[in-house]
Amino acid sequence: MTPRAEARPGGRSARVQQSVYQAVQELEAERGRAALTVPLIAARAGVTPSTVYRRWGDLQELLSDVAVLRLRPDAPPADHGSLREDLEAWAEQFVEEMAAPAGRTYVRDAVAGGSALGAARCSDYAADQLKTIGARAAGRGEAVPGVEALLDGVVAPIMYRILFRPDGLSAEYARRLVGSALDRL
Amino acid sequence: MTPRAEARPGGRSARVQQSVYQAVQELEAERGRAALTVPLIAARAGVTPSTVYRRWGDLQELLSDVAVLRLRPDAPPADHGSLREDLEAWAEQFVEEMAAPAGRTYVRDAVAGGSALGAARCSDYAADQLKTIGARAAGRGEAVPGVEALLDGVVAPIMYRILFRPDGLSAEYARRLVGSALDRL
Repeated sequence: MTPRAEARPGGRSARVQQSVYQAVQELEAERGRAALTVPLIAARAGVTPSTVYRRWGDLQELLSDVAVLRLRPDAPPADHGSLREDLEAWAEQFVEEMAAPAGRTYVRDAVAGGSALGAARCSDYAADQLKTIGARAAGRGEAVPGVEALLDGVVAPIMYRILFRPDGLSAEYARRLVGSALDRL
Repeated sequence: MTPRAEARPGGRSARVQQSVYQAVQELEAERGRAALTVPLIAARAGVTPSTVYRRWGDLQELLSDVAVLRLRPDAPPADHGSLREDLEAWAEQFVEEMAAPAGRTYVRDAVAGGSALGAARCSDYAADQLKTIGARAAGRGEAVPGVEALLDGVVAPIMYRILFRPDGLSAEYARRLVGSALDRL
């Protein structure tokens, strides 16, 4: 059962989703994250708590959904004219966004949802951006590492450090990971 | 403030911790994870809910603590006589334990705690085991990759897949990561 997939844009389902997401963001800004409860969010969104429970299961799953929404890239990766530069710029920005306090919280929320769907969507976002960079480089005739190799060699170490070992995350670290991934080609 | 560090073995603090941990494990086995609440756990442990809140902050932090306890290796890594075999055996076991449903839940819980302490301890467990393997290999005169390189090259991709991309985790994948890490030496 994947309730989210059933939501049609413009339908009641989509309106409920939108108003609940907005309620989470407003209440978090006003009262802080620890104060969030399903009844509070439902009241602000103008729905019943049971509507929220039916759709998301629990607060953690809802927060996971909101986090994934915020982690979605809002633009394709910048084109700097070479695979190395595109990957370096992307990895540096990824570190910068994910390692900021808000980014860290979203990543943790995305992962903490009981279903693995939210986290999988985060990974898909990264994979899609890497595919775009790879396709562009292939179009220039450059040799390109596979997406799985880039997930293992660049994305995974960054995410691991964000979640488990927050020291030492820097633009230089991001560039080093890209360098190692390209050296292995 | 690190309340855990203040707990002296045999003191009241240690007894409270032990009885709360045990209450979590019993109640989870009896009623399932979704039924766990701080008042329920406190009642079973024979303490007041405020004792639990004072010590752990909230349920998520307590579950993170219990998860880290369960993820602690109970023995040093096996000695197979060579760096490659030791790393392969360790990585295969790591995948097997972490990718099982219980392991996945513990990893998610460890990461979901509001403080980053639990997740950092998980990473320290892995680093300690890798250091033991490395020191043994160095004693045999083998060239040994640094612990940070092994965390990036072996542990991070496995954890990333457990949390974000659960397909494709296998003993063969673990061995491939070890092979790449050793090839880079």
